[in-house]
Amino acid sequence: MENSVGLVQTKFCKFDDEILLESGKTLKNIQIAYETYGTLNEAGDNAILVCHALTADAHAAGYNSPEDKKPGWWDTMIGPDKAFDTNKFFIISSNILGGCKGTTGPSSINPDTGKPYGHAFPVITIEDIVKVQKKLIDFLGVKKMVVVGGSMGGMQAMEWSIKHPDYVKTTIIIASTARLSAQAIAFNAVGRNAIISDKFFNNGDYYDNENSPDYGLAIARMVGHITYLCEEAMHTKFGRDFKDKPNFDFGVDFQVESYLEYQGRIFVDRFDANSYLYITKAIDYYDPISKFGSLENAFKQSNSRFLIICFNSDWLFTTEQSKEMVTALIGAGKEVSFIELESPCGHDAFLIEYKEQTKIIKSFLKKDEPANNTAQKPVPSNTTQFIKNRGI
Amino acid sequence: MENSVGLVQTKFCKFDDEILLESGKTLKNIQIAYETYGTLNEAGDNAILVCHALTADAHAAGYNSPEDKKPGWWDTMIGPDKAFDTNKFFIISSNILGGCKGTTGPSSINPDTGKPYGHAFPVITIEDIVKVQKKLIDFLGVKKMVVVGGSMGGMQAMEWSIKHPDYVKTTIIIASTARLSAQAIAFNAVGRNAIISDKFFNNGDYYDNENSPDYGLAIARMVGHITYLCEEAMHTKFGRDFKDKPNFDFGVDFQVESYLEYQGRIFVDRFDANSYLYITKAIDYYDPISKFGSLENAFKQSNSRFLIICFNSDWLFTTEQSKEMVTALIGAGKEVSFIELESPCGHDAFLIEYKEQTKIIKSFLKKDEPANNTAQKPVPSNTTQFIKNRGI
Repeated sequence: MENSVGLVQTKFCKFDDEILLESGKTLKNIQIAYETYGTLNEAGDNAILVCHALTADAHAAGYNSPEDKKPGWWDTMIGPDKAFDTNKFFIISSNILGGCKGTTGPSSINPDTGKPYGHAFPVITIEDIVKVQKKLIDFLGVKKMVVVGGSMGGMQAMEWSIKHPDYVKTTIIIASTARLSAQAIAFNAVGRNAIISDKFFNNGDYYDNENSPDYGLAIARMVGHITYLCEEAMHTKFGRDFKDKPNFDFGVDFQVESYLEYQGRIFVDRFDANSYLYITKAIDYYDPISKFGSLENAFKQSNSRFLIICFNSDWLFTTEQSKEMVTALIGAGKEVSFIELESPCGHDAFLIEYKEQTKIIKSFLKKDEPANNTAQKPVPSNTTQFIKNRGI
Repeated sequence: MENSVGLVQTKFCKFDDEILLESGKTLKNIQIAYETYGTLNEAGDNAILVCHALTADAHAAGYNSPEDKKPGWWDTMIGPDKAFDTNKFFIISSNILGGCKGTTGPSSINPDTGKPYGHAFPVITIEDIVKVQKKLIDFLGVKKMVVVGGSMGGMQAMEWSIKHPDYVKTTIIIASTARLSAQAIAFNAVGRNAIISDKFFNNGDYYDNENSPDYGLAIARMVGHITYLCEEAMHTKFGRDFKDKPNFDFGVDFQVESYLEYQGRIFVDRFDANSYLYITKAIDYYDPISKFGSLENAFKQSNSRFLIICFNSDWLFTTEQSKEMVTALIGAGKEVSFIELESPCGHDAFLIEYKEQTKIIKSFLKKDEPANNTAQKPVPSNTTQFIKNRGI
């Protein structure tokens, strides 16, 4: 556990007031699952908000129990002396609205019915996700912060910089895009179709049933994994190797099939099919270019400086899409650093290639380091806060 | 109907003898659906065998009835003065083994049970498909021929050139590959998983049931269509346009979703889910590199000259994969011409970009033109031959 934040607990807070969503619908009694690492200073300006991608959770670093075999999903990047240095910064990671890891989502209890929302959960957007995160940020007493995110997390970071210019001083967008390509929407649509046509989907109201739409969710995940790896990475990892020898049947034959089947199978144990629907829809919808007329106009709303990182083998969110952001930021007169890192890992690289990212991000964040480390600001007491073990 | 072959009928022939498949299993009473255009000369050496891709059929050119709104699937390329010139050549197009368009496949009647094969149909390979085509070629009295195919049809053409060097004098391989990449296998595996987990799949024995695994087949087709178009083509065709406006639900929202949904929906009306399973498996398995130790060794079996055509925007079967064939052909001392055509149409280009292909193929086939056109050789009478309307 060298340079680890060690044992951490996922915390939960609840907000009773109603929030108005982009769709015009509302949600109330929202719960947010979050973890924090490091100490918030008196000024409340040494915070870093880490925004997660499609299927991750609040547990970004350290271990929730001594028995945990794996640390949080971005443990390589968060900790003492790491890219996001807990000796200097107060790092916040929260599960997104619509998720299934402790923050209100379609599997949560609908306060109006006492049963899980299911298909009654309203469609949400990246804007809604950020709106809910803002409640947590205010609750924690943060005044100024860095926002960082990879993939869909990058969309949240972008939205933060546009929507809350007074809060966000620095934005780091990794392996992301200002909006999905038609092809990326198409992949998401295939995944959603697989879930919706699963025999156990039951129009999204499956929580009280014996079976969930696991087949559909597994297929959606398989499609996802094809897009997360690049063709070369698949070739290197699996080639055309058989798991054993040709079966002459329709079971798992090639190694790559075995990999996808495994990824699909383990995914259904940790993720909710409805959350997959809602979150991919939020990703598809995000489009500040359309909203503001141009990406340049969108970024003009911001007071942040930016670091854009992409990976040469990422074909889901391409270098070209990162360059589109860079061009718009320059056009908007913003301070922007940009680098395309070499990696064979495709879109997954943002989770894997921590060494190069660490070097760049550590240097970039020098300007955001607090002058001196001061005591933690007390958590305000006007909101419910409680602590649970992870997985509840 | 300018330069059309006009009205044509799909013909059928049956072979009573048993054929041994690559799997070690056997099939008997095989029926082949085919069409021919033009006239076979006395020497039997002016034939062109057209091999179709995953979901096509024997009806490659002309019209099966005066009411047909559309001609055969490669009508732009087959006809008087066209790339495959029916004034000079005798062109044969047959539905492949495992298909569902008149040639024996999983939806055919199993002679041992009197019921459709369903999951009792044996897994087949490209080699098996060619073995069955060879019966038709012999039946028609063809002695020497050109073989051409796009996509999976290119694999059949390659196999013909390797397996039957005495028959194949010229091979044209378009938008194809010697073997699938891991990524392409992965896409096929996703499609198969969608079919197999469909609630109506019933282990492949669904022909006597009210419902077929249409949801799964539609999803498989959607995945396919993403790979047939390139990202740029999708961007140009659909961009991020909404069909109407954001629905804030999980119905069809974006134009690209509408397109995929439509492609999936119309596909299930014309194709059998089991055939999709069997044919994609045959494609996945094809690997002359593994079989012969190298692609060069594989091509050394051939006595053919070759034309390799690929398209710059094809990301399913890439230019790199075509170049691999060219390099191996040169290494094997074969005559080979190669061109990468510019097209925005992705893998689908081989069906669309007929003008450039026509110019190249017409010139290339000059050497294969018969000295003079002679009368049609009579069809031998020792095999059942009958004619049906298409669609039966």
